[in-house]
Amino acid sequence: MKNRRNRTATHKGAAKASARNLSPASAKFERIVLPPPTLFGGNVAAALKKRRTVRSFSDKKLSRRTLSNLLWSACGVNRKSGPFGVPGITAGSASNSQEIDLYAALEEGIYLYEAGSHSLRPVAAGDMRRLALGERQEPTGSNAAVRLIFVADIEKYKKAGFQEPGLWDAEVQKSYYYVDAGLIAGNLYLFAASQGLGAWFHNCNRSELALRLGLGSNQRVLFGQTIGYAQKD
Amino acid sequence: MKNRRNRTATHKGAAKASARNLSPASAKFERIVLPPPTLFGGNVAAALKKRRTVRSFSDKKLSRRTLSNLLWSACGVNRKSGPFGVPGITAGSASNSQEIDLYAALEEGIYLYEAGSHSLRPVAAGDMRRLALGERQEPTGSNAAVRLIFVADIEKYKKAGFQEPGLWDAEVQKSYYYVDAGLIAGNLYLFAASQGLGAWFHNCNRSELALRLGLGSNQRVLFGQTIGYAQKD
Repeated sequence: MKNRRNRTATHKGAAKASARNLSPASAKFERIVLPPPTLFGGNVAAALKKRRTVRSFSDKKLSRRTLSNLLWSACGVNRKSGPFGVPGITAGSASNSQEIDLYAALEEGIYLYEAGSHSLRPVAAGDMRRLALGERQEPTGSNAAVRLIFVADIEKYKKAGFQEPGLWDAEVQKSYYYVDAGLIAGNLYLFAASQGLGAWFHNCNRSELALRLGLGSNQRVLFGQTIGYAQKD
Repeated sequence: MKNRRNRTATHKGAAKASARNLSPASAKFERIVLPPPTLFGGNVAAALKKRRTVRSFSDKKLSRRTLSNLLWSACGVNRKSGPFGVPGITAGSASNSQEIDLYAALEEGIYLYEAGSHSLRPVAAGDMRRLALGERQEPTGSNAAVRLIFVADIEKYKKAGFQEPGLWDAEVQKSYYYVDAGLIAGNLYLFAASQGLGAWFHNCNRSELALRLGLGSNQRVLFGQTIGYAQKD
């Protein structure tokens, strides 16, 4: 029912409303303050050696600790004082604009990862992991623990520390935000390889996700990445 | 003189000829067969913690062993049997097309990294590290040991294991090759952080490099990345 109701949200206002007005059935869909990241184990060269794409996942959930380390590895704060006077994160970005917002589709709904408070803000209730995969793709992996959604916010270029002309050219913007999504995804591939998890970077249902997440004209849904325990053959 | 001669190569044919006809002065500019990569040290979480951009470098060269590990980390072969029956590499790519060619500008010239043989093929003689940085950028870091150049070859999509329609859409191609460049650059940021090296991903002089490298209409110069020992303050 929840999925069906969401599917009827055909314009941004409705999607926003559905994200705000959480029904009692969604009571557990609330902010998750993640435990602090830990200095998890795993050697860089060994992780690179193991790096590969996995497309079949078990239903097994991730512990809060693993979810914390995963999101921190992606684009968490790794130093208080980064370039241009703002905190630095684990992944580089154009003029430290940090223009990629990372959403996490879990079974109960989609959250936005907020690096500053290292927490997950609830955005849209319901299992939308299937939408975080391309519409024409086989629905494999939609049971995985986490399906991440990469969204670029070009408004953030306005606040970037170094205002170079390229930040206002739509083609240059594309080149920046796709690379910056790749930098985050690369961190996650190595995190997953180091922790015995599977990872898969893939297309997603861009238009449907933009509706469900209530995105504005400054935001671009880019890609998805699935992370979880691999299905044992 | 060498730089000046290269600068007069104003069309592709001339650039190709200058790459082939190496003068006696360029005698040392020959194929480098890299030593096999090693299981170098460094913890993944610690590398993520140290990841940052460094823009000032010392002139200190990298050992052959470090250069080997650097290029292997970027996009070296990490398993003989990867997706679609071809070897797998350390960085993911659209349908395992491995469409990003990585060139390395060293002091003596620009080489193409060939992952299969783990070697560097000489392409254009002369110090062109300055060109692997954006034309309007301050020339900082042009003394660093290595300046990498990311080039997408869209011809490779024709041979990709899974022929999905997106591979033939110019906009989708962009989204793929920029992300795939980011995946390689992300590996390199973590390699550098784990080895006490500095790294910086940046723009490059696309048109001039395309001439010097003798690239075809199927190839797109994307970005550069500088890696070397950081300048001590």
